[in-house]
Amino acid sequence: MSGKIKIAIDAMGGENAPNKVIDGISKFIENNKSDDYKLLLYGDANRIDKLLSDKKIQKSNIEIVNTQSIVSDDETPLTAIKNSKNSSMWKSIESQILNNSDISLSAGNTGVLLVISRMILKTMDEISKPALAALWPNQKGMNIVLDLGANIECDEKNLIDFAEMGSALYKSLFPNDNAKVALLNIGSEEIKGTDTLKKAYQKLSSLKNNDFIFNGYIEGNKIMDGDSNVIVTDGFTGNIALKTAEGTAKFITSNLRSSLKKNIFSRIGSLLSYKSLQNFKDKLDPRKFNGAIFLGLKGPVVKSHGATDSIGFYHSIDVCYKIIKGDLPTKIKNNLSHINVEKK
Amino acid sequence: MSGKIKIAIDAMGGENAPNKVIDGISKFIENNKSDDYKLLLYGDANRIDKLLSDKKIQKSNIEIVNTQSIVSDDETPLTAIKNSKNSSMWKSIESQILNNSDISLSAGNTGVLLVISRMILKTMDEISKPALAALWPNQKGMNIVLDLGANIECDEKNLIDFAEMGSALYKSLFPNDNAKVALLNIGSEEIKGTDTLKKAYQKLSSLKNNDFIFNGYIEGNKIMDGDSNVIVTDGFTGNIALKTAEGTAKFITSNLRSSLKKNIFSRIGSLLSYKSLQNFKDKLDPRKFNGAIFLGLKGPVVKSHGATDSIGFYHSIDVCYKIIKGDLPTKIKNNLSHINVEKK
Repeated sequence: MSGKIKIAIDAMGGENAPNKVIDGISKFIENNKSDDYKLLLYGDANRIDKLLSDKKIQKSNIEIVNTQSIVSDDETPLTAIKNSKNSSMWKSIESQILNNSDISLSAGNTGVLLVISRMILKTMDEISKPALAALWPNQKGMNIVLDLGANIECDEKNLIDFAEMGSALYKSLFPNDNAKVALLNIGSEEIKGTDTLKKAYQKLSSLKNNDFIFNGYIEGNKIMDGDSNVIVTDGFTGNIALKTAEGTAKFITSNLRSSLKKNIFSRIGSLLSYKSLQNFKDKLDPRKFNGAIFLGLKGPVVKSHGATDSIGFYHSIDVCYKIIKGDLPTKIKNNLSHINVEKK
Repeated sequence: MSGKIKIAIDAMGGENAPNKVIDGISKFIENNKSDDYKLLLYGDANRIDKLLSDKKIQKSNIEIVNTQSIVSDDETPLTAIKNSKNSSMWKSIESQILNNSDISLSAGNTGVLLVISRMILKTMDEISKPALAALWPNQKGMNIVLDLGANIECDEKNLIDFAEMGSALYKSLFPNDNAKVALLNIGSEEIKGTDTLKKAYQKLSSLKNNDFIFNGYIEGNKIMDGDSNVIVTDGFTGNIALKTAEGTAKFITSNLRSSLKKNIFSRIGSLLSYKSLQNFKDKLDPRKFNGAIFLGLKGPVVKSHGATDSIGFYHSIDVCYKIIKGDLPTKIKNNLSHINVEKK
């Protein structure tokens, strides 16, 4: 990577945009004292500029690009392709092929974002299917899980691509750690699972390179153990797993909350435990894991949750910054080339 | 249902058997004051009888059947079929076709149990694939989720069978409540998901009977909301979802536990909140949901977790009792016949 890290941000996408976007940017600038980045904000220039001034945000690393429209939440990919070429989302992605930016970020309409990203940036020549990857906490730090819904059906070739791309992402975010890949399955024995999984297992076991350590199969209950940190699966299964984990976390914490409010003793008790409970809450704060990364296009795109707040959006910007600082695009190219070498 | 509810129990299966089995039985007898059941215990008769006497357990509703061997954890279905026809597991299942019992329960080797249950009891004529169903807590009570791993690949016909069988199970356990079916998918819109899911959706929408209310698709994060209570999916996806939920629950509670131990204030705090935290723990105690139910054979088989303790095993016995009290076999037959009527 040479020059500044250039992050193209769709300032108008998601709930409470552009306010939460600008507040997220403010927090990012506050926390990142380096001068090695530039934030390109796509949207209503007057409104964005006024917000930046009102909130007294330093503008030296910011550039505003005025755009005409916003992709709404009820837009379909089909209508968006026709109507949204001047939107903040479209223009922020397009900036990558114009070499104005290294990565794009949006909290807008997910379906539209995935389709137009693919259309504008194109899939990398080395692969047939791009994948959506998420960050997921584990006992030792952080997992990458992919795919999360970009591809309902995947063959073994796709899963191997995901392993290489996921490892590249992991290494760009955590350069000092090893990527440890596991295939999500319904058992840990070699004979378990679908034919596709068995073929992917064989191939991953025989790949000889230093991109990752292959840990074999992993079951759902071990995803958060931290022994593996790149969890590979098809988009259907990954989506179900991620959302089930979210639902379970919500169920447990809401039950805990209502239990602790039950009587005067538990209320006093939870006041005394406040700091510890707060630490617990902070550690598992979903905003820290906000931002799904769309991998396998000729340029990375990050999707923030539409409903997240400024803290969540800040974490998405931070992910973009780290990904480019860690030189993800080169790492993906290198990793994928190792599969091809094996084929010869 | 006429006469006594007869539950055939493999007394030798699972960790710490037969001790935990006998302790579970003791707890069941303590909590169930009716005289409408009989427990048939298969295993080492001398050992079982001695344990019952030592623990001063009332034997009036118990019958012991001596068997020669035990299916070990490392046995494969293939070797078990050859070697285990005199085992406590085999004999307890076989008792159903000999009309000695209404339902079988074992905490032993899962793979062997599924294969030999199928072999001995045979699949019902109306269906092609049996399914493994689990109980799963939700905000309003309890879910049934199926399939959990008996079938890696399912077509729409299988999913519809699962909806009918799962509803029958729900109604046998909760006779005063409505069964509300949902198909697990990666989105709630009709256009989402695989072709199999779309076909199952169409068919379930058009079925006209009172077996259940069809709520359409459900995403992983809504499983525990309680708006639906029979969650239908293929065995691969169901297994991943259930285990991911288990792993997430374990991750969160272990983080909570270590947070609350961090300093003196939080320790005092959690002492004051002890009762509330205990209530919280009790409500989500996995032992309450112990017992997967194998549906679609000519007789129901319940699989207890191998590692559960006597409390978990007690809950499995209770599930067996309720299932037969609620006349599950007739309910399944009735429900499945409604699909066939529709076909004409």
